[in-house]
Amino acid sequence: MVANNFWINGEPCSDIPANDRGLAYGDGVFETIRVIGRRPTLAEFHWQRLEDSLNRLGIQADVSLLLDEVKAFLSSRGGSDGVLKVLITRGSGGRGYNPAGCSESRRILSCHPLPEHPAANRFAGIALYPCSTRLGHNCLAGMKHLNRLENVLARAEWSDSGFQEGLMLDMNGLLIEGTMSNLFLVKNGTLYTPALDRCGVSGVCREFILHQASGWGLPVIVDDLGEPVLEEADEVFVCNSVNGVWPVVRFRHCRWQVGAITAMVRDRVLDVLNG
Amino acid sequence: MVANNFWINGEPCSDIPANDRGLAYGDGVFETIRVIGRRPTLAEFHWQRLEDSLNRLGIQADVSLLLDEVKAFLSSRGGSDGVLKVLITRGSGGRGYNPAGCSESRRILSCHPLPEHPAANRFAGIALYPCSTRLGHNCLAGMKHLNRLENVLARAEWSDSGFQEGLMLDMNGLLIEGTMSNLFLVKNGTLYTPALDRCGVSGVCREFILHQASGWGLPVIVDDLGEPVLEEADEVFVCNSVNGVWPVVRFRHCRWQVGAITAMVRDRVLDVLNG
Repeated sequence: MVANNFWINGEPCSDIPANDRGLAYGDGVFETIRVIGRRPTLAEFHWQRLEDSLNRLGIQADVSLLLDEVKAFLSSRGGSDGVLKVLITRGSGGRGYNPAGCSESRRILSCHPLPEHPAANRFAGIALYPCSTRLGHNCLAGMKHLNRLENVLARAEWSDSGFQEGLMLDMNGLLIEGTMSNLFLVKNGTLYTPALDRCGVSGVCREFILHQASGWGLPVIVDDLGEPVLEEADEVFVCNSVNGVWPVVRFRHCRWQVGAITAMVRDRVLDVLNG
Repeated sequence: MVANNFWINGEPCSDIPANDRGLAYGDGVFETIRVIGRRPTLAEFHWQRLEDSLNRLGIQADVSLLLDEVKAFLSSRGGSDGVLKVLITRGSGGRGYNPAGCSESRRILSCHPLPEHPAANRFAGIALYPCSTRLGHNCLAGMKHLNRLENVLARAEWSDSGFQEGLMLDMNGLLIEGTMSNLFLVKNGTLYTPALDRCGVSGVCREFILHQASGWGLPVIVDDLGEPVLEEADEVFVCNSVNGVWPVVRFRHCRWQVGAITAMVRDRVLDVLNG
């Protein structure tokens, strides 16, 4: 039962004031959360990143009020699976860029169907498109903020449905991430994932994997990684908190199998994402 | 007579749908235009930048319809001076970052009072705050797009009203711009302004000055410029299309006079900005 697709500050409403700073400057953050039943999955990771990003941007928001609203919002939907988007902006107003005096942030909740990707993405693996849009280094690295034009331009580069995701490099040609996912490589039984201290989004699924890996017996190295490392990898996968893990089987001239470590990580992530 | 502060797609309206991509991803562009009487000043430069940016982002918008709406909007305001903000987003929808199928861009017009800066800014000059927020290099350089978190964070660095603007450097420590203005230096009768091919906004007032300088007998050099060049400058000023030219008289330990070339450029710009 979907009463209304959007709630704003705890009330069903599908419009925001045109003077919102999220619109004006991308002055806000968001989370896209897989919901099974009424339960947000990987919730503690999502709330932690949200809170960290709000702090970094100096946006004042009552996170405990937000969590109450999320609970009520999901209840109002009656238990169906889907994707919950939580978007927080600095709110209305302020004079130009200056955020001084903007203490009334705006909380926007919306629900969406789970994306209908073929099961093959998860089991047979995907092809990565080589995006030419590069990610710039900046002080916003790691956050899932609303300044996402680089991702939009990268995703606009291909329309061939033979590619399920695109790989983005930084301005120095280092591997960073997919347009909507993070990247992992496996080499000699060790997991590698690009450092995200200068650009990229610290994805919640990536965080979960980094957090769990030692318990799974997997050493992890987070570092600057170039394309040669990708070409020599034994296994490659991308992940996000809505779709889980997708093995990568094709990128440019490279071909990989769906490896045993990838399959193990995929299945463990899937356990969590299926609630 | 202000009937309504906002028009959306040609109609008085102050809300936008919460699924607008301008909000979700900063997927759009804007112009902030000084209006004298019913006339937007430096109009041709604003419309040119807007159109160039829309093309670069692949946002389909009917610019001639927009210009008709601007005319009607300004007429409805009855001839008072102010600032017109024109904001174009890619519109609603799309699946995630993918902009495919978003062909209904949204046109948002709003009017605001002219900012009340002291006349001293223009005549006695201003102090520049040294912002520590650096501008990252990316493929979006030059555009006045909606991904403006770096400017917001830089402007949030100071609240001391003794500073009227802040200077932003790039990740390599090169001079780029003010938080809301462009930077010019004068040395031995030549104008210098930072190259904006890797970051920064190609301001309309800067474009106007670059366009006019040779007619004013001023050689111009657009180049990579470091802080030592600033320290050795004879004159320094910042400019934007709403406030015109503000001479800079103080930055860190440096002091400058309001120089003759700055005063000349300021007055010529003022002629245009006063309609």
